[in-house]
Amino acid sequence: MKIITNLSELIEIRKNLSEPVGFVPTMGYLHEGHLSLVRQAKQDCNNVIVSIFVNPTQFGPNEDLNSYPRDLERDCSLLREVGTDVVWIPETNEMYPENFQTWVIVNNLTKPLEGARRPDHFRGVTTIVAKLFNAVQPNKAYFGQKDAQQAIVIKRMVKDLNYPIDIVVCPIVREPDGLAMSSRNTYLSEDERNAATVLYRGLNAAKDLFERGVHDADKIRTIVRKTIEAEPLAKLQYVSCADPHTLEELVGEFSQSLLSIAVFVGKTRLIDNIVLQKKN
Amino acid sequence: MKIITNLSELIEIRKNLSEPVGFVPTMGYLHEGHLSLVRQAKQDCNNVIVSIFVNPTQFGPNEDLNSYPRDLERDCSLLREVGTDVVWIPETNEMYPENFQTWVIVNNLTKPLEGARRPDHFRGVTTIVAKLFNAVQPNKAYFGQKDAQQAIVIKRMVKDLNYPIDIVVCPIVREPDGLAMSSRNTYLSEDERNAATVLYRGLNAAKDLFERGVHDADKIRTIVRKTIEAEPLAKLQYVSCADPHTLEELVGEFSQSLLSIAVFVGKTRLIDNIVLQKKN
Repeated sequence: MKIITNLSELIEIRKNLSEPVGFVPTMGYLHEGHLSLVRQAKQDCNNVIVSIFVNPTQFGPNEDLNSYPRDLERDCSLLREVGTDVVWIPETNEMYPENFQTWVIVNNLTKPLEGARRPDHFRGVTTIVAKLFNAVQPNKAYFGQKDAQQAIVIKRMVKDLNYPIDIVVCPIVREPDGLAMSSRNTYLSEDERNAATVLYRGLNAAKDLFERGVHDADKIRTIVRKTIEAEPLAKLQYVSCADPHTLEELVGEFSQSLLSIAVFVGKTRLIDNIVLQKKN
Repeated sequence: MKIITNLSELIEIRKNLSEPVGFVPTMGYLHEGHLSLVRQAKQDCNNVIVSIFVNPTQFGPNEDLNSYPRDLERDCSLLREVGTDVVWIPETNEMYPENFQTWVIVNNLTKPLEGARRPDHFRGVTTIVAKLFNAVQPNKAYFGQKDAQQAIVIKRMVKDLNYPIDIVVCPIVREPDGLAMSSRNTYLSEDERNAATVLYRGLNAAKDLFERGVHDADKIRTIVRKTIEAEPLAKLQYVSCADPHTLEELVGEFSQSLLSIAVFVGKTRLIDNIVLQKKN
């Protein structure tokens, strides 16, 4: 496994990799969710490149850029175990040099949900992903369904900007008690960690209701809200039952939705989602 | 010479081209300026791809999108003569599909000069060039010095977004009487065509003054303004004597500048520029 920090070195090495090349962009502090992406990429591709970069431009001024957990040594050892071919750890001053002033912006799809609560977040995400794509020139790139809106935004960017890249979205990987894996789970105290299962419990309560034939968007949102409000350590930021393609909030009966939530557990902001879909 | 309209076909053909691949993006109605770019690309590269696309998003609402001259047959015949390997003529609805909503934006460098007079022009330019780059994946791309700000903006975009592409800027090609070649020259009546030499005359008057030791930015701008004001059919929109890297307007003595102008000759808007540089 090659470990590279230099952009020009990455571009040189990329030229000699046999295709298809799979790419997994990460912010490090890897867990089974990330590793599931790398394993899928290994199955699909001749070579797999993983990037580790805590991208400053996708963090808001009051967010956790400085405290975001980092452990490069452990990350590299995990990546070696799952057969990663190249790890690229870009330097911030090479990614954002003096006078940096170019942004990739996706408009409509970034307005609701995470975009409404985290101004400029998606501008940072689409810009860094475009930069990574341009350098790595992958044939396939892998994203987790955990960041559902991000995956939809990246797919739109790839289509709109004519990137010849297949975007593969992999399922959420959960802890045994249902908590979606996230590098930010490390922020939780023991009590908070127990309370954090309320995200999945809320989503599951809605899924049960939906499968019992209740297909009204308001009722679906309400049962999630009530479940989460019953947990003293949790504070719901939003619950959304939206069209999975346009991300527009649904009203009345629906047959398909992305049900997504953001919840503060203590000071830690967690997100989760499930797709609800009528069976034929 | 292959002529392609389909994006997926372009991507397929690109895979089998030996590198380096040179790329010349154009809006068609080709003249010697464009052909000089293709000839340079042929010298440097194993394969040369030329695109012809009148990009709607870089035209303002009151600009000449609909009247912009087109002659694909003549363009293809000229491109064949200079040894072009692939001509790509994208369809507008494939470049801008329904729900298109992604833009590439360069901030500071697009604010003055053309950007100040043509709002959203550079957003259209950088977005289409990024799209063309993503599809063509060239090793080198060729732009004309005639659109000096555009070349500077594209270089910034390539650096900021980590495109592994060399940007080659080629000199302005002029008619025997000094008028810079432009597809828009075709709009000029005979009288206007004669009057249009005033752009080059104005720039040359400044160059003479500079070479006689007058290095003050205001004096340089003034001599251009006066030369153009003396031509009844011409109306100066702007004259800029700016830092060639930042495009900031110069004040007082300078050793290097991009001297650029936009002039209406009748209803036709023409631009031209020269670089002034102290000799050692």
